[in-house]
Amino acid sequence: MDVIQLFKYLINSKSETPDDGGILNFVEDYLEGFEAIRIDIEDVKNLFIYKKFSEGEHLCFAGHVDVVPAGKGWNTNPYEAVEKEDYIYGRGAQDMKSGLAAFIQAVKDTKNFKGTLSLLLTSDEEGEATNGTVKVLEYLQEHKLLPDACVVAEPTCENEFGDAIKVGRRGSINGYLTLKGKQGHAAYPEKAVNPIHQIANVLGDMAGVDLDEGDEFFAPSKFVITDIRSGMQVTNVTPNELKMMFNVRNNTKTTQKEVEEFVARHLQGLDYELRLTQGSYPFKTDTDTKLVKKIDTAIEMVTCKVPKHSTAGGTSDARFIAPLGIDVVEFGVKNDTIHSINERTTKKEVQDLYSVFKTLISEWNRQ
Amino acid sequence: MDVIQLFKYLINSKSETPDDGGILNFVEDYLEGFEAIRIDIEDVKNLFIYKKFSEGEHLCFAGHVDVVPAGKGWNTNPYEAVEKEDYIYGRGAQDMKSGLAAFIQAVKDTKNFKGTLSLLLTSDEEGEATNGTVKVLEYLQEHKLLPDACVVAEPTCENEFGDAIKVGRRGSINGYLTLKGKQGHAAYPEKAVNPIHQIANVLGDMAGVDLDEGDEFFAPSKFVITDIRSGMQVTNVTPNELKMMFNVRNNTKTTQKEVEEFVARHLQGLDYELRLTQGSYPFKTDTDTKLVKKIDTAIEMVTCKVPKHSTAGGTSDARFIAPLGIDVVEFGVKNDTIHSINERTTKKEVQDLYSVFKTLISEWNRQ
Repeated sequence: MDVIQLFKYLINSKSETPDDGGILNFVEDYLEGFEAIRIDIEDVKNLFIYKKFSEGEHLCFAGHVDVVPAGKGWNTNPYEAVEKEDYIYGRGAQDMKSGLAAFIQAVKDTKNFKGTLSLLLTSDEEGEATNGTVKVLEYLQEHKLLPDACVVAEPTCENEFGDAIKVGRRGSINGYLTLKGKQGHAAYPEKAVNPIHQIANVLGDMAGVDLDEGDEFFAPSKFVITDIRSGMQVTNVTPNELKMMFNVRNNTKTTQKEVEEFVARHLQGLDYELRLTQGSYPFKTDTDTKLVKKIDTAIEMVTCKVPKHSTAGGTSDARFIAPLGIDVVEFGVKNDTIHSINERTTKKEVQDLYSVFKTLISEWNRQ
Repeated sequence: MDVIQLFKYLINSKSETPDDGGILNFVEDYLEGFEAIRIDIEDVKNLFIYKKFSEGEHLCFAGHVDVVPAGKGWNTNPYEAVEKEDYIYGRGAQDMKSGLAAFIQAVKDTKNFKGTLSLLLTSDEEGEATNGTVKVLEYLQEHKLLPDACVVAEPTCENEFGDAIKVGRRGSINGYLTLKGKQGHAAYPEKAVNPIHQIANVLGDMAGVDLDEGDEFFAPSKFVITDIRSGMQVTNVTPNELKMMFNVRNNTKTTQKEVEEFVARHLQGLDYELRLTQGSYPFKTDTDTKLVKKIDTAIEMVTCKVPKHSTAGGTSDARFIAPLGIDVVEFGVKNDTIHSINERTTKKEVQDLYSVFKTLISEWNRQ
């Protein structure tokens, strides 16, 4: 099989989260001579498959085989790869069976490498993502199999193939605040402690405020209030407490602790409880790491373009990989039809992506 | 009967809202030669009873015959007047069967008057107050029987008998605000219009703010927020709209229109809807009106004290009388046990209150 045949095979394997559509078994067979570790948890299927060619660094390609449901309104069968003009249509064409096809084929076609090559595949990235990549990484950490560098083949290009890689993502901190007052009669406000009035004095200094100034890669970390509620939906009693929820999409300059301090500074002297949770941590892979330099080079060699280094957009499994000290970048085809009906990518992009990954592997150890 | 016997008779007539305990029929019989108009609506009983002695001004005494339920824990039967030391115990002893006894007896004992004397009695002041005094006033207005001046015999004294009359009350304005935004994802606040952030900028300038400076009789009219709610109780979506409720206990310097303008000034440029309702209007009877001067004189003649002119405290049916252009004051016994168990008043207060009302009537037309 060549990369296009493989790509079509993957699209034809219907794999709505958390179904893997048989792809993981296929990859195990397809990468002959590689060592496979299956980590299946409940209905989620995971595969870590690797080959130690020699001593040296460990370069990993990561991705998800699951896709979001097709939805209605397609012009073709979403689970059958259909070529039309320059495009190949099918659910997952961009997100991210093109990426999978490219790196599986690139790794398969590699005969020599100084170090270890591996693939980390999960069937649960579009879902809860709790039994997927996270669990594989725990296993790898325990067994000292963590890679040094990792490419997540999510679709990253914006206007044309090769124009952008992702070198980081914002994190997400959720806040749950309870401000306590003392209930009272609206006619005698002086006898009550009205938590709405208390927060009113500082809310303007909190809502929508930037907790840092951001930098060339990241927008500032903004304090965004998503819910506020206080009172008994009457006009004659002032409330006992106020509850507020907020979210901070944080960059690497602002941590949970700083969010906590920001709240403490504004609510000084008030009686409150704050609970913070963090769904994902921000990460940023330095531009001068080997991984970023090598993938930039590979992209330039294939496309004659120098990609921009972006941190924009939603979340991906890269958020779980980076905190372990592994250099991570994301690179894949254009992402203009992901999660849409008639999802498609061009044949050329899939071929070029294969070429970039093949070049990355061959360039990896070149001085 | 003297006033104390009458007082005891009234206490013994159990009249929990809206029951009149037969008191209205009794008063009709008791005030021989007076013209009685019964206005009973659903389970509420009302009596307007008057006598035109001659041409001249119309002075009215108003009050409610109903009492709040006794509750548990009394040392005596709350519906039996019990004398113990200087006190008479019973539900309604202060609020307001002492007032009723005093003015019924004072009017009964009046043989000559230049003008008209009347009583306005209802069995629904402690309840909804929708079928009580309001309905009688509508009738009187329609039949051109409205009084020129009115004494509501609610208990007003604070520390000793004769120390305070009420010359006004605050009104109450309720506000219901809806602020409209545009829902969005918490990660992309710039694409949404977050109504919490919008109001945050001005909330500190609204919450607890005085809309006027008050005066010697009234506290300032304060903007008190009683409820605020916005959001879907999640941290990843910013809300579409925000709802807020507030209350202003307003004095005569601030009207609904000024509350509306206050909100408009602060929410300028925002997309909102405001609904205002007014449960009661503030009133203030000028200190130099005949009514205030005459009752001050009567109190001083009986007690050797000059009462203070207060506007503090809760609501009474005076709020319905004043807006019709009728001068209104409230005067009655001490109010330290109203609505409590073992409600009581002293015999002397009831006798003195009778004397004050008798003196008011006899002094009314003296130059």
